[in-house]
Amino acid sequence: MANFKGHALPGTFFLLFGLWWSIKYSFRQKRRKERLGDRDNQTLTRLFNRIDLIEGVLKIFFAFVGIMAEQFVPDGPHAHLFNNGWVKLMNWQHSTMYLFFAISGIADVLSVSSLPVPVGLDRLSLSLALFVEGFLFYFHVHNRPPLDQHIHSLLLVAVFGGAASTLLEVFKRNNSVLELLRCSLAILQGTWFYQIGFVLYPLSGPQWNLEEHGNIMFITMCFCWHYAVALLIVGFIYCVVFWRGHNPFT
Amino acid sequence: MANFKGHALPGTFFLLFGLWWSIKYSFRQKRRKERLGDRDNQTLTRLFNRIDLIEGVLKIFFAFVGIMAEQFVPDGPHAHLFNNGWVKLMNWQHSTMYLFFAISGIADVLSVSSLPVPVGLDRLSLSLALFVEGFLFYFHVHNRPPLDQHIHSLLLVAVFGGAASTLLEVFKRNNSVLELLRCSLAILQGTWFYQIGFVLYPLSGPQWNLEEHGNIMFITMCFCWHYAVALLIVGFIYCVVFWRGHNPFT
Amino acid sequence: MANFKGHALPGTFFLLFGLWWSIKYSFRQKRRKERLGDRDNQTLTRLFNRIDLIEGVLKIFFAFVGIMAEQFVPDGPHAHLFNNGWVKLMNWQHSTMYLFFAISGIADVLSVSSLPVPVGLDRLSLSLALFVEGFLFYFHVHNRPPLDQHIHSLLLVAVFGGAASTLLEVFKRNNSVLELLRCSLAILQGTWFYQIGFVLYPLSGPQWNLEEHGNIMFITMCFCWHYAVALLIVGFIYCVVFWRGHNPFT
Amino acid sequence: MANFKGHALPGTFFLLFGLWWSIKYSFRQKRRKERLGDRDNQTLTRLFNRIDLIEGVLKIFFAFVGIMAEQFVPDGPHAHLFNNGWVKLMNWQHSTMYLFFAISGIADVLSVSSLPVPVGLDRLSLSLALFVEGFLFYFHVHNRPPLDQHIHSLLLVAVFGGAASTLLEVFKRNNSVLELLRCSLAILQGTWFYQIGFVLYPLSGPQWNLEEHGNIMFITMCFCWHYAVALLIVGFIYCVVFWRGHNPFT
Repeated sequence: MANFKGHALPGTFFLLFGLWWSIKYSFRQKRRKERLGDRDNQTLTRLFNRIDLIEGVLKIFFAFVGIMAEQFVPDGPHAHLFNNGWVKLMNWQHSTMYLFFAISGIADVLSVSSLPVPVGLDRLSLSLALFVEGFLFYFHVHNRPPLDQHIHSLLLVAVFGGAASTLLEVFKRNNSVLELLRCSLAILQGTWFYQIGFVLYPLSGPQWNLEEHGNIMFITMCFCWHYAVALLIVGFIYCVVFWRGHNPFT
Repeated sequence: MANFKGHALPGTFFLLFGLWWSIKYSFRQKRRKERLGDRDNQTLTRLFNRIDLIEGVLKIFFAFVGIMAEQFVPDGPHAHLFNNGWVKLMNWQHSTMYLFFAISGIADVLSVSSLPVPVGLDRLSLSLALFVEGFLFYFHVHNRPPLDQHIHSLLLVAVFGGAASTLLEVFKRNNSVLELLRCSLAILQGTWFYQIGFVLYPLSGPQWNLEEHGNIMFITMCFCWHYAVALLIVGFIYCVVFWRGHNPFT
Repeated sequence: MANFKGHALPGTFFLLFGLWWSIKYSFRQKRRKERLGDRDNQTLTRLFNRIDLIEGVLKIFFAFVGIMAEQFVPDGPHAHLFNNGWVKLMNWQHSTMYLFFAISGIADVLSVSSLPVPVGLDRLSLSLALFVEGFLFYFHVHNRPPLDQHIHSLLLVAVFGGAASTLLEVFKRNNSVLELLRCSLAILQGTWFYQIGFVLYPLSGPQWNLEEHGNIMFITMCFCWHYAVALLIVGFIYCVVFWRGHNPFT
Repeated sequence: MANFKGHALPGTFFLLFGLWWSIKYSFRQKRRKERLGDRDNQTLTRLFNRIDLIEGVLKIFFAFVGIMAEQFVPDGPHAHLFNNGWVKLMNWQHSTMYLFFAISGIADVLSVSSLPVPVGLDRLSLSLALFVEGFLFYFHVHNRPPLDQHIHSLLLVAVFGGAASTLLEVFKRNNSVLELLRCSLAILQGTWFYQIGFVLYPLSGPQWNLEEHGNIMFITMCFCWHYAVALLIVGFIYCVVFWRGHNPFT
């Protein structure tokens, strides 16, 4: 969906997940530092599992919404792939991206179930979903104006950065800084989707000149500012949880 | 062998290995989670070793078949390398790829023998075989039409992905998710070889337009679908083994 | 600040930090090898923490100085970003780089405080600061003469090398060789900034020919010599500390 | 030294080191698997240290010979760097490469001394020496005929492969397969230097056509054959040591 909404939708998903993860992992890390009695511990573990379950289900639901939106918007492919030529491949590619996030959601749900799922499957499948997203975007942006290409390749930095950091989590499970890194990269991705929308499809004001070198230089720097803000947000949530956060679950 | 069979042959090898590994590692992981008595444990270890031995021998055999097929097909080089110019270098390159899989098979056989072989040699040699395969493919596809190049570079993603994940297994031996990742990448490689065959040498219907950008976009996405299916297959086998699989070896 | 001073300023920062780290980590490693009594141990830990605190504060201060210098030099942007076109984006980019070093300084300060900061945050934020620096430099040098581009890409080797080695320190904390590697790369970066200044804005003598291939070859080699000297300096400081260094803090 | 000897000299160095390492590490791994009495153990440790010392001294000596040869061959720069233009930068670059191997030799010597040298310094400095070698080669081969460029980039695969595997050894010390991998890559580098010499400066017979695509394809494959032979050699030495090798040092 090459319009503002088509970028705001995934942007909102990532932003919400980034913010939610910041809260969840801050609480989890707080709990890890507190020594709790055995009973409290069990209660909390069960609670966290239930939360992870809900998160997984929501992820599947959001991915499903994304797929449906891409397929059945008025100018979408309506599940037709080939009709004297490929039909709306862009929408199909976006649907494919959502599909892998749905798979990641399924892996999340299985991981908190009582089934004998291998440890780390949830992180690996999330890493794969991000990798596939980056992989498809990489081949997505040929033959576009310089600024359009550049702003999408900056997105790739956030996407592949997230994929790499999540892959590391497969082997370094429960590593606090890696968890926070993932949160910040998810928020970065979310806000950057919005930025792409604002630049390519401005809601008001003049169009951006997609050929001007100065714009490219500004956007590169702007990406760093987004990340600084993302770090600030994660840090702020972490502090609030640690100083104020009476564990709401007890 | 630039025809459908030349792609179906390696495709079948990788597909079979991918499926077989999915079964083997699912059983092995199931066993790791079960606490068995000492006698059962010993019996199983011996059994698994024997299976690995057979696998290694089969790998050597398949690689030998591959080398022979490449050399002695009617339009092959028949073991001539230079004759007023290089003779059929493509076939020689394929033979070289098979050679390294044979070396990997030898390392497998040695690893389950009682000889003092360093731990991890089997994984390292498999990783090297995949790396050499990718390395030769990388320099293989110059001066071809865009779609032909692209469909082969997608293969490289599966090949180098497999090489990297197998290399990690040298250091993280018996890591469940890495083993399943390798299975899925092997299946992906197998089905993708078939896909290449179908696209470049269609059995029926019209030829693909090797220059059209839409085809390249579709093929990129199709690669992701292949991987989704590969994940599904591995997941399905894993589930069947864990829920139904009375360990057939006891 | 495209002049000699604009390169000497960051060069001095990195050089000072590289030298200082060489001294600090040599003492720290010396202490790790010595078995001290519990009381001495506590005293030293408190002392090292105070030193790290001062280092963090200095880092924030230097970064602040850097930002101010970039913004308020006579031909700087004076905090104006857009005024009928982007204003002095180069200076803004440099300010952004300093910003991330300020963030790294804040993380340092928090890490030695008594707050529940995740282990490794200081190293991760330093790694991020170096990554952002390299990231901005990477898009910084388009459309310049060959030698100018080349001398800046060599800087990237030091920057990204430092980012990677510092990232490893997140997972391999207190690894002696990684610490020394970081010291040497910081010194390299410092001296290389000076070298860039000398080449592009010679204080005396003729201008360098920015197109000549011989100059590029020499500069590549010169970079290696800088690193050899950096290794020598680190090694020399390490030796002096270990042989002569009565721990000055006891 | 752009002639056959200039490639045979480093080739011989690497080949000798590769073969020697294969022997040394095979014995060392054999010893690790044998449980020896405490006294034998001490004797062996002292012996292995003395051998490492000799190896380090030899490395320094060889590097010194290399530097001298590059500087004082009849058409060398004779220690002149600038004389109305850069003097023989190729020879200077080669000297720089040797310099870093000398540094690696010094690190080896220090590591087996009784001085408090950080663990892993020997491997890190060897990795740096290989990295610098690859780094200089990478910028070495511009503006040459295709085959010349290609045959040197293949060398880079061996060089950077060696640098990466040696870097891993910093963190995974005494890992048997990594040690053997390094041996095989050193042998590969050695034989490949000879191959470069034979191709670019044939001792007899016609010149190679440096533009022909078939030659490039053959050389790529030939590189893999070299590696297969290198693996064979390492495997053979390992077997001989394990089956026949009465530890000669006891």
